[in-house]
Amino acid sequence: MSAFISEKYRSFSPYVPGEQPQDKKYIKLNTNESPFPPPPGVKAAVAKAADRLYLYPDPEHKVLTQKTAELCGVSFENVLMTNGSDETLDFAFTAFCDTNTPALFADITYGFYKVFAESKRISYEEIPLRIDLSLCVDDYTGKKGTVFIANPNAPTGLLLPVAEIERLLNSDPSRLVVVDEAYIDFGGESAIPLCKDHDNLLVVQTFSKSRSMAGARLGFAVGNASLIRDLKTIKYSSNPFNVNALTAAAGIASLEDDAYTRSNCRAICENREYTVNKLREYGFYVTDSMTNFVFARHPRISGKFIYQTLKDNGILIRRFDTPRIEDFVRITIGDRRQMDILLDAVRKITEVKNA
Amino acid sequence: MSAFISEKYRSFSPYVPGEQPQDKKYIKLNTNESPFPPPPGVKAAVAKAADRLYLYPDPEHKVLTQKTAELCGVSFENVLMTNGSDETLDFAFTAFCDTNTPALFADITYGFYKVFAESKRISYEEIPLRIDLSLCVDDYTGKKGTVFIANPNAPTGLLLPVAEIERLLNSDPSRLVVVDEAYIDFGGESAIPLCKDHDNLLVVQTFSKSRSMAGARLGFAVGNASLIRDLKTIKYSSNPFNVNALTAAAGIASLEDDAYTRSNCRAICENREYTVNKLREYGFYVTDSMTNFVFARHPRISGKFIYQTLKDNGILIRRFDTPRIEDFVRITIGDRRQMDILLDAVRKITEVKNA
Repeated sequence: MSAFISEKYRSFSPYVPGEQPQDKKYIKLNTNESPFPPPPGVKAAVAKAADRLYLYPDPEHKVLTQKTAELCGVSFENVLMTNGSDETLDFAFTAFCDTNTPALFADITYGFYKVFAESKRISYEEIPLRIDLSLCVDDYTGKKGTVFIANPNAPTGLLLPVAEIERLLNSDPSRLVVVDEAYIDFGGESAIPLCKDHDNLLVVQTFSKSRSMAGARLGFAVGNASLIRDLKTIKYSSNPFNVNALTAAAGIASLEDDAYTRSNCRAICENREYTVNKLREYGFYVTDSMTNFVFARHPRISGKFIYQTLKDNGILIRRFDTPRIEDFVRITIGDRRQMDILLDAVRKITEVKNA
Repeated sequence: MSAFISEKYRSFSPYVPGEQPQDKKYIKLNTNESPFPPPPGVKAAVAKAADRLYLYPDPEHKVLTQKTAELCGVSFENVLMTNGSDETLDFAFTAFCDTNTPALFADITYGFYKVFAESKRISYEEIPLRIDLSLCVDDYTGKKGTVFIANPNAPTGLLLPVAEIERLLNSDPSRLVVVDEAYIDFGGESAIPLCKDHDNLLVVQTFSKSRSMAGARLGFAVGNASLIRDLKTIKYSSNPFNVNALTAAAGIASLEDDAYTRSNCRAICENREYTVNKLREYGFYVTDSMTNFVFARHPRISGKFIYQTLKDNGILIRRFDTPRIEDFVRITIGDRRQMDILLDAVRKITEVKNA
C-alpha cells in the first residue's frame, strides 16, 4: 500500500477470484466455466473484427444490443451490454445504493456483492438463508434498500421459482430488485418477462457460462428503459467504451448460433444429473442444483480434505471459508470424461475414509 | 432517470465521447484513431485466443504484463494492465483522490478528468493553462491534492519536457502526480524512467493510438510497486477480469512487433508536419502538436463553421464548447490521402471566406 491511497481503502479486502492456473495441467472444475468452446462462428468473427481494431467500438453496441434484446424478447432501450456481468453489478451498486439505500443480499451468495458494498462504502445487510440454504422472499419483507439476488444462487445452486421473484417485486414496488441470472440457462426460468410490468426489476445475465465466453468478458442488464438509462449514466462517467470490439463481435456470433448454446446446456444438465446421482451414491449430501455446478458435502469428510486431495490429484474444485458451508465443495460440471475422472477420484477418497 | 437512482447522480452530466458513426461514410478525423490497422500478427493471435474463450482470462495477465514491463524498462510489479487507459484513470481517481485529497488538473485538458471527479464526488481544482495554452508546473506549487497531467496535453497537443515533470515531482514528494501519456509515442519523451526514483509518479499509457488498438480497449499504468498494488485493490473490488483474453492476445502480438508501431508513428509525424505546414499556409494558427492530431484556429472563420462545413463534406473532425478554445478545431492525423482530402476541403473553406 502506498502513502497516497485514499483512507477508505487502507483496511480493505478485495475479492479473490478462483484460481486460474495458466499451465493447463489441472482438470479445472473450480470457476464454473463451460467445458465447450464458443460456437465455431466466433473465431471468424473476432479475426474479422481485428482488421478494424484501430477504430473505437460503437459505445452503444447497436447490433449486439439489438440481438440481445431480441433474444430476451425486449426492446433495444431495455438492454445495456457490459464488460462482464461483474461490471453490470458494479454499475448497479453505484447507481442504486448509497448510505441511505443499503444493499440487501443473502449471507451465502456471490461473494462479490459484499466487496462491492464495502469498496463503495454502501451500507448492506446480509439476510440469512434458511437452514436448508434456501432463500425465502418473506425474509426481505419490510426491509428498505436494493435487493440483490443471485438466481439460481451461487454457490448453493438452488433456484427460486419466478413466481417467488414476482411476489418479492409486488411486496414493495418502491424497492428495486436486482436478479443476477448468471446461471439461469441451466434449467431455470428467467425473470426477464416480469420486466415489462415491473419497473423495480433489473435482470443481469452473462455470456461467461452457458455461452462459453468467460474469456471475452460480456454481460448485460435487462430492465425498464429508465433503469437502463441510469446504468448508462454510470457507464459514461467511468468507461464509455467498456465493451471492446472483439468481444462485441464474439457476442454477435454467439447469438447467431443460439442452438449451439442450447445443445451445450442440455449436455451440461445431463452431466449434472449423472454427477449428482453418483455423489449421492458415494454418501454425499448434494443440493438440487439448477446451475453448471454441484454443491456437495460429505457427512464424515471435510471439504478442505476433499479439495486438497483432489488438487493433489490434478483436479481443481472450489470451497469457501464461509460459516455454515465450510464443509461443502463446489464442483463445476465439465464434460463426461472430466466428470468420470472427478467421480473416480472422489470415490477413492470416500473408500479410504470408510475403510 | 428512474426513481431508484442514487441522489448523487440526479443532476449529473456524463462524458460524451466523440461521434462513432458506424456507417463508414465519413473520413474519420475526430477521435484520434490511427489510420493503420494493428500489426498483422494480431489477427492470428485473437483467432487463436478464441479457441480458449470458455476459460476466464488470467486476472494478472502475466505474459502481457511482463512484455509491457520489458518495453518500458521496468519490472512486472511496476505495471497494471487495464480495460483502456480510461480504466486506469478511473482506478487512479478512486484510489488516490477523495474529499480531502482533491484532483488538480488543467482547465483545458482531457474532458474525462472532470467527469471522474464529479461522478465520484471528489473535490477538484482546474488550474488555468497560460495564455498560449501551455502548462506551467509552477502554477501547481503549494497546492495539495493529486495532480493529473495529460502529456502531451489534449486537445492542445503541447508537450511538457520531461525535465518539467521532474521539477513538478521534486517540488512536493508527498503529492502524487499522474501523467497521462496517451499520445507520448508521437515525438514526446516518456516520464517512465523517472518512476525508478520517484514514488510519487504514476504514468498512464494506452494501446489505442500509436498501437492502432482503440477497438481492443487496452491501457496500462506504470509506477512504484506500492502504487500498482493500490490500483489492484480497486481492480479486485470492481472487476478482477477487467481485460479480456482476446484483447490480451492482441496486446501481446502488438508488443512482439514493435517495429511496426514505430514505423507507423514516424509516418504519422511526417503527415502531421505536412498538415501543420499546409494549415499555416491557409492562415491558421496551429499549435506545435506532439500528438497524432493538430489543434488549429482560423483568425476569421469560426470553429463551428469549419466543423459543420467539413461534416457536410463527409469529413468528421472535433471541436469543443469550452471557453478559450471554442474556435479551435482538433483534427486527427490520418494517412496522406485522408489529409489531402481534408486540406483540400479546408482550403476551399478559407478561399470562400476570403473571397
